[in-house]
Amino acid sequence: MMKTAVIGAAGYTGIELVRFLLGHPAFELTCATTNSNDGQRIAEVYPGFTGQTDMVFTGHDIEKVKEGCSVAFLAVPHTAAMALVPELLAAGITVIDLSADFRIKDPLVYEQWYGTTHSAPDLLGQAVYGLPEMNRAALIQQAAGLANEGKTALVSCPGCYPTATALALLPALKAGLIKPGSTVVVNAISGVSGAGRTPSAKNLFCSANENVNAYAVASHRHTPEIEQTISQLADCALPVSFTPHLAPLQRGLLSTASVELASDIESDALHSCYEQSYATEPFTHFLSQGMPQTASVVGGNNAQVGIVHDKRTSRLIASCAVDNLGKGAATQAIQCANIIFGLDEKTGLDFIQPVL
Amino acid sequence: MMKTAVIGAAGYTGIELVRFLLGHPAFELTCATTNSNDGQRIAEVYPGFTGQTDMVFTGHDIEKVKEGCSVAFLAVPHTAAMALVPELLAAGITVIDLSADFRIKDPLVYEQWYGTTHSAPDLLGQAVYGLPEMNRAALIQQAAGLANEGKTALVSCPGCYPTATALALLPALKAGLIKPGSTVVVNAISGVSGAGRTPSAKNLFCSANENVNAYAVASHRHTPEIEQTISQLADCALPVSFTPHLAPLQRGLLSTASVELASDIESDALHSCYEQSYATEPFTHFLSQGMPQTASVVGGNNAQVGIVHDKRTSRLIASCAVDNLGKGAATQAIQCANIIFGLDEKTGLDFIQPVL
Amino acid sequence: MMKTAVIGAAGYTGIELVRFLLGHPAFELTCATTNSNDGQRIAEVYPGFTGQTDMVFTGHDIEKVKEGCSVAFLAVPHTAAMALVPELLAAGITVIDLSADFRIKDPLVYEQWYGTTHSAPDLLGQAVYGLPEMNRAALIQQAAGLANEGKTALVSCPGCYPTATALALLPALKAGLIKPGSTVVVNAISGVSGAGRTPSAKNLFCSANENVNAYAVASHRHTPEIEQTISQLADCALPVSFTPHLAPLQRGLLSTASVELASDIESDALHSCYEQSYATEPFTHFLSQGMPQTASVVGGNNAQVGIVHDKRTSRLIASCAVDNLGKGAATQAIQCANIIFGLDEKTGLDFIQPVL
Amino acid sequence: MMKTAVIGAAGYTGIELVRFLLGHPAFELTCATTNSNDGQRIAEVYPGFTGQTDMVFTGHDIEKVKEGCSVAFLAVPHTAAMALVPELLAAGITVIDLSADFRIKDPLVYEQWYGTTHSAPDLLGQAVYGLPEMNRAALIQQAAGLANEGKTALVSCPGCYPTATALALLPALKAGLIKPGSTVVVNAISGVSGAGRTPSAKNLFCSANENVNAYAVASHRHTPEIEQTISQLADCALPVSFTPHLAPLQRGLLSTASVELASDIESDALHSCYEQSYATEPFTHFLSQGMPQTASVVGGNNAQVGIVHDKRTSRLIASCAVDNLGKGAATQAIQCANIIFGLDEKTGLDFIQPVL
Repeated sequence: MMKTAVIGAAGYTGIELVRFLLGHPAFELTCATTNSNDGQRIAEVYPGFTGQTDMVFTGHDIEKVKEGCSVAFLAVPHTAAMALVPELLAAGITVIDLSADFRIKDPLVYEQWYGTTHSAPDLLGQAVYGLPEMNRAALIQQAAGLANEGKTALVSCPGCYPTATALALLPALKAGLIKPGSTVVVNAISGVSGAGRTPSAKNLFCSANENVNAYAVASHRHTPEIEQTISQLADCALPVSFTPHLAPLQRGLLSTASVELASDIESDALHSCYEQSYATEPFTHFLSQGMPQTASVVGGNNAQVGIVHDKRTSRLIASCAVDNLGKGAATQAIQCANIIFGLDEKTGLDFIQPVL
Repeated sequence: MMKTAVIGAAGYTGIELVRFLLGHPAFELTCATTNSNDGQRIAEVYPGFTGQTDMVFTGHDIEKVKEGCSVAFLAVPHTAAMALVPELLAAGITVIDLSADFRIKDPLVYEQWYGTTHSAPDLLGQAVYGLPEMNRAALIQQAAGLANEGKTALVSCPGCYPTATALALLPALKAGLIKPGSTVVVNAISGVSGAGRTPSAKNLFCSANENVNAYAVASHRHTPEIEQTISQLADCALPVSFTPHLAPLQRGLLSTASVELASDIESDALHSCYEQSYATEPFTHFLSQGMPQTASVVGGNNAQVGIVHDKRTSRLIASCAVDNLGKGAATQAIQCANIIFGLDEKTGLDFIQPVL
Repeated sequence: MMKTAVIGAAGYTGIELVRFLLGHPAFELTCATTNSNDGQRIAEVYPGFTGQTDMVFTGHDIEKVKEGCSVAFLAVPHTAAMALVPELLAAGITVIDLSADFRIKDPLVYEQWYGTTHSAPDLLGQAVYGLPEMNRAALIQQAAGLANEGKTALVSCPGCYPTATALALLPALKAGLIKPGSTVVVNAISGVSGAGRTPSAKNLFCSANENVNAYAVASHRHTPEIEQTISQLADCALPVSFTPHLAPLQRGLLSTASVELASDIESDALHSCYEQSYATEPFTHFLSQGMPQTASVVGGNNAQVGIVHDKRTSRLIASCAVDNLGKGAATQAIQCANIIFGLDEKTGLDFIQPVL
Repeated sequence: MMKTAVIGAAGYTGIELVRFLLGHPAFELTCATTNSNDGQRIAEVYPGFTGQTDMVFTGHDIEKVKEGCSVAFLAVPHTAAMALVPELLAAGITVIDLSADFRIKDPLVYEQWYGTTHSAPDLLGQAVYGLPEMNRAALIQQAAGLANEGKTALVSCPGCYPTATALALLPALKAGLIKPGSTVVVNAISGVSGAGRTPSAKNLFCSANENVNAYAVASHRHTPEIEQTISQLADCALPVSFTPHLAPLQRGLLSTASVELASDIESDALHSCYEQSYATEPFTHFLSQGMPQTASVVGGNNAQVGIVHDKRTSRLIASCAVDNLGKGAATQAIQCANIIFGLDEKTGLDFIQPVL
């Protein structure tokens, strides 16, 4: 068992990491830090843990993490992560970072969208973008480094919207089916847990319930991450018009992309492309018929993808459903950690989630 | 008081018509027909009416409608409407049709999307598309015909998605700000009442709750209606890629369009265009800041519109929120009837709806 | 038009008062005070008011209220109300108080449950408990005092749970059908708007959604108010075991009481008792069949009551549904104000609320 | 691996059995029968299974079950179960029955509440009521019979409301703390999945959403089961006044009982009684502080219990939260099966469920 820390454990993503790590056969959760509930029993803050664990949240004591742990999951806000990562890596700790700090490869783009200078730009090259469907080879390479040379690894886990959007388009992008240079129009809908646990006017029940709205239009920080990822997959620059919406769901995220097709492709070929691309993926499944719904993936690491070929407008509509706290955050981080440490990718994630 | 019938009164749209007509000072509801609850008290089927009305649903007895009423609201499925309308008009009854049957001007397009030949194509020219923000002049002209020459009128009320989408884009389209020929990408989210009152696997609580999905992708019948309307507003053909979604709301509909701008327009000019366009509208309001939310318009005839100029991609993101059963159906029909009969447009609709 | 103030206008109850007063033909809202959104346009805080009013929230400037208004609705927390009321009454302003401060007739009971000494106990006798179904005569007497002698009036509006519970049991209590001295077991379920607009862990979407729990068990401050009211109606002391629950509704409140019947009464007689008791009530309706649902009364001032005679256990199960912000707060306050000022009781409240 | 059938696998309870059995290390699901989706892939009906199983629903072919399986879970309606059970037992198959048919020990009481004569009254004595917290010893005795003598067993699993109500009161009942003969007032709230998967006016999204109501008042069929269980636990007859409510939750059930205490017991003693009673239970947990919420137990087999001693009225308010499809149905059935077959009680149920 590898001693494991979750830093930022009391937020919605952090507590999902706690939940899955407590049941994981290879990672032993020894440290769950927070600056909001320091000293409280986990079961006091989240009463669902009653009878499951006596563990107590501790403060952000990084020395303690450095002494005892060999791997740390970071579920802290951006800027907080880049302040911690160099120190943790230097202490020989492998870092699975769920913040945005190491996702954007160009520090100038980071600065432009996040409004602050990157404090550890030298680590951007080392960080592997933790989307296994795209970067499994790179993750496995890290695993080799860890195993053979005693190196530490840094995985930068994708944002929730970029995860779903990349998975919706990956097969078509890799096959060169999207018209080069065309604008990719992405509309996404997220559950309210995506807005975090800090009480505000936005995430009150009476504000979010029975309500839908677009937010952060043309300014959401996941935009450059989506552009970077899909441009890399397409091997050409694809601008993205990204509009996220909030809907009255606890969890669940759907990303729907509408893109121009490169040429006269047959619908069957489109479907085959997706089917083959995802045939062996353990968590990402292509629906041969119909479009995905969030309810089918909530509670675990699965992603479901569906497409429609709109022949009338020569466009592809691709939709991907994930759990924003699962495949969009906590469980994908554990999937990456499994790969990095040479475990079966499904370790600790291999259960059938509720279906209603 | 004009004696008034609602034909198809027991569905969600029909019952909203009933609700507003029971409180209307000029229309007297004398007949509420249905083929599902014939003979039942309205308050038995919808217990919210207890103590408000003793009215009873009757069967579809068109003779009775023809004898007693001077205006009929049709909340019946497509094909049922076109079978009734000629008979009603011939009997001197003005028809406010909420079905799809007289929306599409080209009977071949109707046939293509609705899968059936139009049985009253000669009336398509006479039918006025009941979107007052677009066609107020034509509606007023009908009013004159009614008042001076004793003619009957036929108003074809827009669908819920076309209403919200047209209102989101109308100012920009009329001002020629959208790039001619570019594909208009529309993503919309509707509450579950849009799926109707007939029980099915889709509209069960346990199917729709905590769930979001796209449906009828590239095949929704509102697509040609949206294309017809926005192309008419733009005075040029604009193809539409339309993707509707279902979200766990009772009522409320948001349509978000992403479009290419024609040229280098300033953000201020865009905002001015919208502000001026909607400055005097009684029900459609432009938000000078922020994007609209459905909760702000549910329960009445209001529409709220917000825009963002995405300079980075030279696109306009425009979003409009309506109540799918209100401005998207029943109350807009009453707004049209008010105009047609020379009443103040707000008659019977002039109250402040709940704000949470 | 009587110039009218709402003090505490930005909370959920306050804003409902604002909504109904803006549409009221006799009360002219001239002043909407708040200490949370001072200086903001109402439509900025609650965007549903966009295009409906340009009114701006002002701070709690009581001098301004005293100069300009003849009636004030108080939607402030307990203790804040009793600090204001003497001053307002002295300035000749009639006060409709929605706080708890003047509900409990015994200042010692007030102190026991509210944890603070009552600062205006001399006004407790003057305050009329504003439940028209129980106290219409007393309210009309106030109206006479106002009209003929230029007196001011003080109405203390019931809490939401006491309103629903009293209406569930009133006919049986007045008819002496409940066993004297038996414990009245009340279980109630409230929507989340009852928890107020101040963000906290409890009223977050992700806390309240898909969740139900009992709270404030045996300690809820509405308990002594329910006991006082039902004991007064029964003309004997009836202890109350009151358990409120929170459910994932925006608004709506259901109170279900289980009580021992006094003797072998026939079911028909029970039903007749309720039917006659509520036959002429403008807002409270008895269901001859079935039990009430909150959805039927949300958005207005209606209450619906249903009963079941459990012959097996010789008990009466009575259930009443109200809108916690409507009949349970804002609209009942306006109903009282209508009576107090000699208006038709339904003035400004006479519309048919949405039925789904 | 024991070959296992789920009969009635396509309903909400059946599909939860399927989900947990697919992941169970000792039971091998070989047969999932239904009369509604015969021949359809499970993943087609419940798309959350996509990529998890290729299994297909089959028709109710009992011969096939009898040939291949050693245990059958019955998730069929009452009357259907009692028609099948004798045949299955005779074929040497152990039956875990989730229907109501073998819960009521007195066939006359069964007939009175279920409106039909019991067709297999001779098996009522053999059936063990599957509430492990109450009947663990009897279940273990069955296990011995199975293991040593090759007998078959029949477990009759409790209803969802009886499960939660019994667990809310069990410690106090066993300790004799409830006043003998006093009426136990039970109010419970269930999520909509409790209403089943057959579409009807009641379980439509637009009927159940934003709505709360009591139903089946004084006539719910779980009433005699609750009376039988708590009277057995108390060792004296206790009449029950049971009022179930429906709330807009997918799943989750809360039962709150208000009961007269036998004598002047101290609050501390009450708490100790509960703490000791549940100290070693694997799934049922007593909250030392606060009352339980359904969100904490949804998705698994946990139950949480909280109490308040209302000294003012000498009553105990006890509340228990379960997942109506989990501890209230499918997972409790598996817990029983684990015991019956000599497995660790937590086998296949030992994971930490989502906490928000």
